[in-house]
Amino acid sequence: MRLTRYFLPVLKETPSEAQIVSHRLMLRAGMIKQASAGIYSWLPLGYKVLRNVERIVHEEQQRAGHIPMLMPTLQSADLWRESGRYDAYGPEMLRIRDRHERDLLYGPTNEEMITDIFRSHVSSYRDLPMTLYHIQWKFRDEIRPRFGVMRGREFLMKDGYNFDVDYESAIHAYNRHMVSYLRTYERMGLQAIPMRADSGPIGGDDTHEFLVLADTGESEVFYDAAITDLKFGDRKVDYDNRDECAEIVKEWTTPYARTDETHDEAIFNQVPEERRRTSRGIEVGQIFYFGTKYSEPMGATVVNREGQHVPVHMGSHGIGVSRLLGAIIEASHDDNGIIWPEGVTPFHCGIVNLKQGDAEADRACEQLYDALTAKGLEPLYDDREERAGAKFATMDLIGLPWRITVGPRGLKNGVVELTSRKTGESEELSPEVAVARVAEIYGK
Amino acid sequence: MRLTRYFLPVLKETPSEAQIVSHRLMLRAGMIKQASAGIYSWLPLGYKVLRNVERIVHEEQQRAGHIPMLMPTLQSADLWRESGRYDAYGPEMLRIRDRHERDLLYGPTNEEMITDIFRSHVSSYRDLPMTLYHIQWKFRDEIRPRFGVMRGREFLMKDGYNFDVDYESAIHAYNRHMVSYLRTYERMGLQAIPMRADSGPIGGDDTHEFLVLADTGESEVFYDAAITDLKFGDRKVDYDNRDECAEIVKEWTTPYARTDETHDEAIFNQVPEERRRTSRGIEVGQIFYFGTKYSEPMGATVVNREGQHVPVHMGSHGIGVSRLLGAIIEASHDDNGIIWPEGVTPFHCGIVNLKQGDAEADRACEQLYDALTAKGLEPLYDDREERAGAKFATMDLIGLPWRITVGPRGLKNGVVELTSRKTGESEELSPEVAVARVAEIYGK
Repeated sequence: MRLTRYFLPVLKETPSEAQIVSHRLMLRAGMIKQASAGIYSWLPLGYKVLRNVERIVHEEQQRAGHIPMLMPTLQSADLWRESGRYDAYGPEMLRIRDRHERDLLYGPTNEEMITDIFRSHVSSYRDLPMTLYHIQWKFRDEIRPRFGVMRGREFLMKDGYNFDVDYESAIHAYNRHMVSYLRTYERMGLQAIPMRADSGPIGGDDTHEFLVLADTGESEVFYDAAITDLKFGDRKVDYDNRDECAEIVKEWTTPYARTDETHDEAIFNQVPEERRRTSRGIEVGQIFYFGTKYSEPMGATVVNREGQHVPVHMGSHGIGVSRLLGAIIEASHDDNGIIWPEGVTPFHCGIVNLKQGDAEADRACEQLYDALTAKGLEPLYDDREERAGAKFATMDLIGLPWRITVGPRGLKNGVVELTSRKTGESEELSPEVAVARVAEIYGK
Repeated sequence: MRLTRYFLPVLKETPSEAQIVSHRLMLRAGMIKQASAGIYSWLPLGYKVLRNVERIVHEEQQRAGHIPMLMPTLQSADLWRESGRYDAYGPEMLRIRDRHERDLLYGPTNEEMITDIFRSHVSSYRDLPMTLYHIQWKFRDEIRPRFGVMRGREFLMKDGYNFDVDYESAIHAYNRHMVSYLRTYERMGLQAIPMRADSGPIGGDDTHEFLVLADTGESEVFYDAAITDLKFGDRKVDYDNRDECAEIVKEWTTPYARTDETHDEAIFNQVPEERRRTSRGIEVGQIFYFGTKYSEPMGATVVNREGQHVPVHMGSHGIGVSRLLGAIIEASHDDNGIIWPEGVTPFHCGIVNLKQGDAEADRACEQLYDALTAKGLEPLYDDREERAGAKFATMDLIGLPWRITVGPRGLKNGVVELTSRKTGESEELSPEVAVARVAEIYGK
């Protein structure tokens, strides 16, 4: 993409309404624009990152054998009356009446709707196990929306639902989700720690939240430093293998890690003192096993191997897709702007032309652009007639992990400069080697 | 995908509520499930096709230089009061009040919101031309939703908005959209004819609708048969070239083609009688030039080359993404089910194992599955323990363009059968050649 043909409305001033750094940087980098309280438009740069995060979630869900589908944003109130949650949910549910005076609501979650789909079509244990998921916009009418996309009202979430014939297989689904989430977050450059949590309005027995450590997190967290040494890496996982998944879950749940809701001082004090940590965390996902809480009242049963009708065992599993953008920025920025992890960056590499209009510099930039594109990479070429300082400031603000700087002086010596946004370190390389280096970084 | 691990709830009976063939087939093929009147869940198979249609729209929009972004589903009523449409829109607009008694609405279209984004960030002709688009769920509270996704209430639409400094450049944007739409529909296996239309509540001077010919279409259409001979093909278009785009528009708008709204009997009668056609059509898109209708009341101005503040010239351009699935099926089916065009098919190829459990047949199917997958294709393998007839019926119903049938008898002779869903013709080939043939069809 050439910047002169893009829509990247960066702001010079820091918007006064933004209290936390991710909100400030998303506004300043032209990623979002508030439409109403807690409701945002995703400007082109923000939308690109949102799609990248969404793509990673899709890939990892499908790798674990989960099936994508899509439920609508609006739901009938009748379904929620069946489960008893219509009255219980409170004022955070956006209630709507249509032209025929029928009660609708903007879905905050989809347990009822997916249970209805299941009971309409599935009746035998032979069709199980099954996990269906979707990535769809949700609405929660927060009384005081704030922190940008971190606590918005309209937000994008992946929510998945497992259906299993018995407890053991439902617990495998729970474990499978935890494993796939660990890999999902790591691909986004995040360390998200699973912590024992409270189940809240979803209900259920077992639940873990995934928290990213950040000073601005809404939860206080307590953990054994040993957990931050764990890496998922590129291990190959057989998601059908119960023992293998259980083993990985054990690895991540053995070190102490809890939020203030479930914190137990006595157990925490058994962690060696030098490893005890207190911090703050941002919740980016949560998994639940809740058994027959919805299947029983809603009559979602299957015939089991013994020929008996039994309510199906369920769990639900969420990832806060739009919120993740805020969490990633909270965890990865400096005074000059965002530092995108390579897994989610909106463009793979920036190209800065120090002397726009200089025939040789222009030609070199075009060649770099074409060479990077030919490798399957997406560069952002700053081809504006601007001074170098302004171009660097924009690149730093929007946070592309790599920048290639092209100027007449370097070109005389046959080199361009490749700079890491994270370390600030630069290297002079021939254009060909610079392209090869960037391609190698992204595995292209 | 292996069918035993998928969720494909096909129905044996024809649902009584469905009046048109696409609605019946989408329900029978397990593509959708009604959630409320005019609101659907997209089951896995339907969701896959929806994503394919969406992907083609994205690719062609970006090929034309248009910039993707995403606006929210809910909008503030205040913006619509500014344009004067809040009161004018009528009961099809879903009006919502939040917990703070603020008026919101579920967006049926986004002219106001995009104009607000534009005026907040753009002030010079130097940033133009610019076309922003998004693909987002919309809501129209139809009094009598019907025909499945063809006239739903919650529907997915691509809507794009061009911003230009003057009339001439806005007309180029109009032409550019028409050209890119021609290519978009053709990639989906559709012939969509641009027809002069009425502008309706969007307003404006120039507008064309794109209609797919089908007996169940909601509009009566009148056209010169010469237009159905036109093919876009794989011509290379420079979307920046005004003359080139205008030339293509001329090619498609010279033969007579109008809906009943703009039909002119006197002009129609000048078409040679043997080429005059009357038919019905399904609207799958519409483009508008409406000049300063929104920019003037909302104060969206730019400084032009002469230093004057002028209201920006705009147009809006829509493609009915979810509705397209219905239109494609109306245009491409037979008595046995759907016939997907290769551009949008949910799976590239079906594999039918005639004797599940037979070691050799199972092994051959697995090898085919792996070989197709290695080519970057996505096969659907019917690995159920079902009789052949039921497997064929399912494959015909869900409409994959190609099917490979594997049975012990053929394997003895070293062959499998490759069958075209469209023609019903079969060919006996070695498994390797069958894979190569399917890969070639899809350009893999």
